[in-house]
Formats: sequence, C-alpha cells, structure tokens
Amino acid sequence: MIDVGSLDRGAPAPLHEQLAHSLRASILAGRVTSGEAVPSTRALAADLGLARGTVVSAYEILTGEGYLTARPGGGTVVAEIVRPSEPRSLPAVAAAPEPAPAVIDLRPGRPGTAGIVDAAWRSAWRRASALEVAADVADVLGEPALRRQIAAHLGRTRGLDVAPDDVIVTAGTSDAMLLTVLALEPRGARLRIGIENPGYPRVRHLLGRVGVEAVPIAVRLGAGLDLDDIEARDDLDAMIVTPHHHYPLGSRLDAAARARLLAWAARTGAVVVEDDYDSEFPHGRVPLPPLHLLDPANVVLIGSLSKVLTPALRCGWIVATGAWREHLAAARADLDPSVSQVQQQALALYLGDGALARHTARRRRDYRHRRRLMLEAFAGVEGVTLTATDGGLHAVVLLPGSAREAETRVVAALAARGIVVAPLAGYAVPGTETELPPGLVFGYAEPSTPALMRAVETIIATARAATS
Amino acid sequence: MIDVGSLDRGAPAPLHEQLAHSLRASILAGRVTSGEAVPSTRALAADLGLARGTVVSAYEILTGEGYLTARPGGGTVVAEIVRPSEPRSLPAVAAAPEPAPAVIDLRPGRPGTAGIVDAAWRSAWRRASALEVAADVADVLGEPALRRQIAAHLGRTRGLDVAPDDVIVTAGTSDAMLLTVLALEPRGARLRIGIENPGYPRVRHLLGRVGVEAVPIAVRLGAGLDLDDIEARDDLDAMIVTPHHHYPLGSRLDAAARARLLAWAARTGAVVVEDDYDSEFPHGRVPLPPLHLLDPANVVLIGSLSKVLTPALRCGWIVATGAWREHLAAARADLDPSVSQVQQQALALYLGDGALARHTARRRRDYRHRRRLMLEAFAGVEGVTLTATDGGLHAVVLLPGSAREAETRVVAALAARGIVVAPLAGYAVPGTETELPPGLVFGYAEPSTPALMRAVETIIATARAATS
Repeated sequence: MIDVGSLDRGAPAPLHEQLAHSLRASILAGRVTSGEAVPSTRALAADLGLARGTVVSAYEILTGEGYLTARPGGGTVVAEIVRPSEPRSLPAVAAAPEPAPAVIDLRPGRPGTAGIVDAAWRSAWRRASALEVAADVADVLGEPALRRQIAAHLGRTRGLDVAPDDVIVTAGTSDAMLLTVLALEPRGARLRIGIENPGYPRVRHLLGRVGVEAVPIAVRLGAGLDLDDIEARDDLDAMIVTPHHHYPLGSRLDAAARARLLAWAARTGAVVVEDDYDSEFPHGRVPLPPLHLLDPANVVLIGSLSKVLTPALRCGWIVATGAWREHLAAARADLDPSVSQVQQQALALYLGDGALARHTARRRRDYRHRRRLMLEAFAGVEGVTLTATDGGLHAVVLLPGSAREAETRVVAALAARGIVVAPLAGYAVPGTETELPPGLVFGYAEPSTPALMRAVETIIATARAATS
Repeated sequence: MIDVGSLDRGAPAPLHEQLAHSLRASILAGRVTSGEAVPSTRALAADLGLARGTVVSAYEILTGEGYLTARPGGGTVVAEIVRPSEPRSLPAVAAAPEPAPAVIDLRPGRPGTAGIVDAAWRSAWRRASALEVAADVADVLGEPALRRQIAAHLGRTRGLDVAPDDVIVTAGTSDAMLLTVLALEPRGARLRIGIENPGYPRVRHLLGRVGVEAVPIAVRLGAGLDLDDIEARDDLDAMIVTPHHHYPLGSRLDAAARARLLAWAARTGAVVVEDDYDSEFPHGRVPLPPLHLLDPANVVLIGSLSKVLTPALRCGWIVATGAWREHLAAARADLDPSVSQVQQQALALYLGDGALARHTARRRRDYRHRRRLMLEAFAGVEGVTLTATDGGLHAVVLLPGSAREAETRVVAALAARGIVVAPLAGYAVPGTETELPPGLVFGYAEPSTPALMRAVETIIATARAATS
C-alpha cells in the first residue's frame, strides 16, 4: 500500500521531491514490497489532486535512484532492493554457508549510466552508421560537426566562447594530456611539469611513461594548492591543475589564487593545463569560469565526456588558441587522430539533439539528491568527516586521528564487506603519503541509491569501529 | 544497346569476368550511355543462356568499378562517367573558361569504401548502441568480444593461432606503434629504433615526437632490406619492418632474410615490430606467414582495419605474447585505452557476422581487377615502369633516367591536371632522397575504376612527356 503522507505546497522543496521522499520512505519501510506495482501516474495524480507531471517527476527520481523499475510490457513496480535496515538475525532455513556479499563498487570515476541508452542515443548511432564512411580521416583535429557541438556545449555549460576551430577531439583526458605533453618544447634537458599532490594518479603514470619529470606541488586540506611553491619555480614547462574541484580533495582556486597562477604562467612562460573534469556537476556553490576564459593564450583546457556519459566512450577534447593550437595540431598530425569517424558523428548528433544536456540535467538532479542523503547520513557522526562534496561525483571521508594505518584497516574491512573504496594515500606521490590525513575516496554516482546508502552506513560504522 | 560479344566457356577467365569485360567495353565505346538502363539480371541471363548468378556477379564488378549504378526505385543504369577517350576538340558552345579539372585523389592509404555501409554494417552499430554502456572501461586491453574476433580474423587471413588474450585493441597503427615504443626499456640513454628507408613517414614523425632516435636502414629496389647493415648493429632496441610488402617499394623479405632478421633479434635482444599493413590483399603471389608466427617471443605484430575498411575508423591491434604482452599491457594501463566500447562492440558484431570477410573478398576482387587493368596500361610503355604491385592497394611508378627533378616536375604537372600522387622522395629520410630513383607513389583503391584508368593514362603520358 502506497502511503504518501502529506505534501506541503508552501515548503521550500518542490512537490515532486516531497512526493518522491514519501514514496521512498514507504518502500524503505517495507510498506510496499519488491515487484509490487505502483499506481499509474495518471491514477496517483488524480488521487492526490496533483498535476500528472509532478507524479512523473517523482517516479523518474525514484527510477533513477533504483527504487522503482519499469516492468516489461508497461507499468512501474518496486525494484528488487536490499534495504539498509534488513534484519540480519532471521533464523537460517538451512545451514547454508553465508553468501559472499554483493560487491558495491564505489571506486571513483564511475558515473551513473542509467538512462544513457535511450531513443535519442540509439537514434544518433543509427543515423551516424548510415552515413558514408570516408576513405581517410577528413580532419585530424576532429569531425567539424562534433567540434561545433563541443564548442556549443562549452558555451552552455562553462560560459566559454570557443571557436570550433580551437577544439581538438581526443580519446578522453589521457589522450589529451599525452598530446599536450608531446606538443611541449622542453626548456631544459627534459620536460618538467608540475602536478598536484595529491592528485589524479594516471597523470603521474602518463608523465613517467613519456619520460617527463613530474614535480609535485602540494595541495593541502583547507589551504588548497601551494601557490608560494609554484611562484618560487621558474623551471616548469607546464602546470597541470584541477582548479574547480581539486581531485580528490575538493578545494578550488579562488579568484586571488587564479590571478597568482596565471601571472606566474605569463611571467615564466609555462603553460597551465586546466583539467576541467567534472564542472558539469556543481553542487552547493556557483561554478567559477574556466581559467582558459581568463587567459586563453597561456591556458590549455582539457575536458571529456567521461563524467557526463562514461569513460568507456573514450571521448574528450582540448581547447587551445593561437600558438598552442598550432603546436597541438602538429603533435596530433604526428601521432594520428584517435577517435572513430562514426563515433564522432554519433556524438555530434547526440549533442545536437540536446540529448546530452537532458541526460546531464537528470544526472545532476540525481547526484545532488545522493549528495544530500549522504550529508544527512554523515551529519552528527563524530570524528568522521565527509568532504569534497561541492561538485562532481566523488567524495572524501576523513577518518579520526592521524594514524595512517587506520586508512588501510578501514579499506580492508570495507572490502571484506563487499564495499570497494580507494585509500586517500593512493593519490599521493609515493613517499609523501604521510602528509595526508587518513581517508577514503569514493564515487557515489554509479550504484543504485539504496545500495549507495547501505554502503554509506557501513562506511560510517566501519570508520568509527576501526578507529575507536 | 548492350553488346556482350561472345563468351568462351573454355577460357581461363570465369564467365562473369568475361561478361563484365564485354559490358565495360560497350560502355567505354559509348554504345550505351549514361543514365541508360541495362537489362535486369534475370532478362540478360535468359537472353544469354547464363546462370543468373553470373550476370549478378558481372553487374557487381561493374558497380564496384563505378560503371553501373543502382537507380533509386530499382533497376540498374549506366553511371555518369567521364570516358578516358572523350574527345577534347569539340567546338566550344560559348567562350566559357575551361573548368578546373575534377580532382582524382590517388594519395596512398585510401581504400575503396564502396559497399561498407550495408545492412550488416548498420545492423552491427544498431545492436552495439542498444547494449548497456559500462560505467568504466571493462578491460584496458580491449573488449573481449572484439579481441576474440580479431584473433579469429588473424587465424583466417594470416594463419596465426593467437589467443584472444594476446590481442590488444588500438586506435589504429600509430596508436599501436606509440604503445609499443613506450613499452620499451631503452638500453642506452634513449631509445634507438631501426626504421626502413624509404618507409612510412608517419613512423619517423611519431618516433621523433616521443624523442626516439630513428636509425634508417636502407631498402633498395630489387635488393630489399639491407640485412648486412642490421646485422652490423647491436645497439638497436627495436626494428620496425614491413616484411610482406615493403612500404612503399613493394619488396618482401624472403625466407633467408626472415631467418637472418630473427636470428639478429634473438642475438641482440632487439624486438622486431612487424607492420602487417596490407596482407589481406595479396596479388600475384602467395603470402608468406607472419614473422610473429616464426618467433612469437621476439616479434610484436601490428595490424589494423585501415586498409580493409577505412583509416577513418581508427581501429587496429597488437599481437604480443609473454613478456612483451605484459610490457604492452602496463603501457596501455598508464596511457588509458583509446577505443570506444560502442565501436569495439559494433566491430565485434561486424566481424562475427562474417561481414568483414565478405567485404574484404569483394575489395580483393576489385583491387585485383584494377591491378590487371593497370598492368595492361603500363605494358609496353617504354621507360616508365609500374612496380610494387604484388599486394595491397598502392603502386609505384619509376620514371625514366635518374634525374630527381623529373619527379618534382611530373608530380606538379599531374597536380595541374587534377591528379594527386605522392613523390617517392617523400618516403626517404630527409637527406637521403638521392639514393632513390625518381618515382611516384599512388593508391589505386579509392577512385572509381574509370577515374583511375583516366588518371593512369594521364600519368603515363605526363611521365613520358616530362622526361623525354
């Protein structure tokens, strides 16, 4: 039996969110059970005296969260879910061995992919695969149609006024980083590039692989990127930063820090590589404009579809102007382009149809909802702090005290319970782990909301137990 | 009026080729004109007392060559073609300026793409785009389904018995080369890799871009790769070769040369990188087995879909076993994979359906036919030699004499007539051009057969005029 409680038209939360909240509570309380049909949107809207669109929106939220699911043949039913409060002490029917817990994969970088494969998606690929294939790559920098769509996307989402000619299509962020690094002319015996520490480990691996000296620049909890350290150096060919939502600690460069970074770049001739990896998902604060907008000549911007769609697509871009664009184009010609014509055309159609914008809006609502649930879950938990939540689709849990062993213990204990998270130490340049407090990094986008919240409860309990 | 002349059941050429030859002659002689309908296959088969399949095959050949075209709504008509023998001395109707000649692009590396976009192609993409998308790359070495299909493809086309686990999916040959180079551990201060001279210029550019010293090893007309030079060196980390059909000169390593190359690699610890770029199209000689088959431990094989489908797809592979496979897998993990999940699944379905094998068989017939026409056109032409025709989809024209300026003059004169070919000097390591005879490299796969044959006539005339 569905019980929607009372909805309050005067409350700050919109009616569809209130309705979703009530329905979710009914499901979690077991008042409706897995497989049970919920009323049609039309019937429930009539029952409650609501606009049908309100009920549709509420059902969409719950479907996105994994509480409801469409039944083949029509209708909507309560999904098969494991409740966080499921009693563990039921008498065993037989002496069967305890089943291994289902793994909840919270490794960062895994976006929610529900809803990607819809009519617009399939139509884009169908139309792209019906086009003539070219006998060679027409444009080494990318299909003009896709470069136009990426430019328009960056205009909408990042306020950038980019010419399609200044967009280079890449096979994701790593390909973009590789291309940028190989476009640099070293001033010393070999390239020397500043990286954030802690930071995205792949950048460090990639630089090592091509023989670049990676110079770690500290990013500290609370204080952010160490600009004093950067300003003291004039031997860097480039500095790679995540200025909008540091990966993984979540800080961002404020206006003063941005000005200092750009002034340093202009003074020393280093290029700033702006890894704009998750700005499509701001939560809780207004996003700042890209560094590239402030100083196009000295900033190369890198972005991708890995967070808004999935890294499995291997598609991203570089935005660069003037001399940088020419250096990058020359490097691309030497290395050959990396993205298939069919995929580029399909994505151009998908973006052109507005489908990416719609999918991103749905994901944004979903991620904000998840974030709110997590903030609620962590509120008042003593000694365990949730941070880095002001954007994107990952968060950081800081463990109590400063004993680094606590981190290892908690990660292992969670793994034993089927919950996969990343230790914060994995983001540090080896040898500098002790500069970091013990913590966990986890992605909150991909599992169903019930699974996520079950995992969050376990994380909190494990963190408290292992460190008390 | 179609005049098929007489067909000879006892002749070595199969009936459908004889029929295609007669029909082609009718079209070229102007006995049937552009837009005119040809009889239905059923009617012509009945008229001539042939199996209908024979007529279907003949029409397919002529459609592939561009002489016939399907009419929207059904039926087949003579295509709009420019005849090589078209008279140039018709009285001008008005004093209109001479129109710029239509460009015939004979740059090497452009395969024939007619027939790729068929029902099987569209179905593969449609099915792939209906599959769930993963939240992350499932396997950095490539989708298991595609790796299985590539292994099966190499079994069929190259006699290789490869485990799918030993296949790594790449974004074409350049990505494969880059990955291989970055997987190498230099024995000296920096990597030193042998390359063929002349050879594929992209390899040289790519090596330069990643700071590798490229050591040119001479390939001479007639004599082939200079194995004495290779055997005198023990300082190479790798040697990149095109052993089956040297690019661009067309020689191949015979059994003795293969044995010497592999013995050298085993002795010095260098890896042989086997660029197996066009072996799907042997003409006029039986292909030799891959070097990888002879010595899997010391040979890394690189192949791609660029010649059998199109380079615009950016898809290829590396085959490597044992320690090499591990080095390559580590490099791939550092650099991130480069090919989209959707594309990999679509290609797996396309190969699995047998569609690639069918397309390759059609192209092979078409290319062999083109090659025969070219050999006929060049037969008896004094001073101008066609070579490198024993496989693939490019050929080399050697100009008379040894004056290198002749090459520049002929390339420019052809460009003025709308025919784009590559000068042989462009394949030489800069500074070594004088070791090459003057010549042209051109691809014969992509333009329609009538356009190709018109271009070939012009090439012959221009080469003779410019060098007489």
